[in-house]
Amino acid sequence: MPTLYGVGVGPGDPELITLKAARLLSEARVVAYPANPKGDSLALSIAGRYLPPQAEHIVMAMDFVPDRQSANAAYDQGAETIAERLRAGHDVVVLCEGDPLLFGSFAYLLPRVPPETAVTVIPGISSLTACAAAAVRPLALGSQPLVCLPATLPAEDLDRALSGIDGVAVFKVGRHLPKVAEALARAGLAEGATCVIRASHQDQQVMPLAEALARPQGVPYFSMVLARRA
Amino acid sequence: MPTLYGVGVGPGDPELITLKAARLLSEARVVAYPANPKGDSLALSIAGRYLPPQAEHIVMAMDFVPDRQSANAAYDQGAETIAERLRAGHDVVVLCEGDPLLFGSFAYLLPRVPPETAVTVIPGISSLTACAAAAVRPLALGSQPLVCLPATLPAEDLDRALSGIDGVAVFKVGRHLPKVAEALARAGLAEGATCVIRASHQDQQVMPLAEALARPQGVPYFSMVLARRA
Repeated sequence: MPTLYGVGVGPGDPELITLKAARLLSEARVVAYPANPKGDSLALSIAGRYLPPQAEHIVMAMDFVPDRQSANAAYDQGAETIAERLRAGHDVVVLCEGDPLLFGSFAYLLPRVPPETAVTVIPGISSLTACAAAAVRPLALGSQPLVCLPATLPAEDLDRALSGIDGVAVFKVGRHLPKVAEALARAGLAEGATCVIRASHQDQQVMPLAEALARPQGVPYFSMVLARRA
Repeated sequence: MPTLYGVGVGPGDPELITLKAARLLSEARVVAYPANPKGDSLALSIAGRYLPPQAEHIVMAMDFVPDRQSANAAYDQGAETIAERLRAGHDVVVLCEGDPLLFGSFAYLLPRVPPETAVTVIPGISSLTACAAAAVRPLALGSQPLVCLPATLPAEDLDRALSGIDGVAVFKVGRHLPKVAEALARAGLAEGATCVIRASHQDQQVMPLAEALARPQGVPYFSMVLARRA
């Protein structure tokens, strides 16, 4: 039965891909992935070396803007082409940065494919564990709850989600850094907090939250803040 | 400089190990890992095939009981032997089930090694993303907060941590299943919840929470409950 594979390709370092993902990529006939309007794709830049040169590429080019209009149209069109290839009897491999199901784009594609589609997901190294590894810092241990927060949340939602929590990882921080730092301070979690920029990439940086806040250029989109109650 | 490597070996399927982890294991001279009092180790059962036959094994055998006395003694002794090997100029590779820093045992070893030790962590596929993959179920998307909860938490702490949360993953459920199910129901998250047993192992099972609750034999320790607000 033709299968749709959602394959996690990890956070950036091409060696942080699983043996299973590398095997599936090396056998892929049809691959699909999101890209920016110019066609650049982080997922492809990680996974491209494992793909056979003759693989067909379904590029879902989109503007990453909050209203999601461009993204929705790209996923709609991509899902249509994917469904065609599946009907023709081909497996389709979707390349997913990090993990397919943890704040991943695969979740947007999933509801768009025909409901009878056979789907297999290969988990990937997420930015969550890649950032903790970069900082050599436990995310949570023992009986400590850990919350994963998208930095896009409004301040009051950050506050609500941080109540009763000992550890936190804030995803995709970018321009939201000051709001995130203030919410952590209100929750008593700012002390000892760390900012990890572009974990596992060659230009990876790890610094105290205060140092990140002081950067005149701010931090990029692919930054994470980690904090834990002492 | 001799380095202590914390290497995530993934949730069970030996193919869910990263290329980087497989490379480091294949070059390892000294490996260390936790084991039960009989010396059985899940981490070794996953990673053993990648190790050179002549590698030295430092086995940290412990009883997994709540008071942690046995575990603390095993980590103390393991850390001492590890420090000796590092002083002798050898790298030491610690095998960690799942990911080293997400509810992982590596966090207990870390504070026990000499503070000047060079430490490198290789992230691994955690049970979090392996369970989501098994269930083909998004953990979180867009601006939804996700909380990771150890099932050992008292009911009132579960309630507190679930406030203001859209997605939840409850770790190491085992005999805590009824308490977990009740907390999810109080938080309005029980509907559509899924239980994943031994994700990525050959005897993996995925079932609705209600079905897991009805099992006369209960669920094993390595079970996770996933829920998300619709």
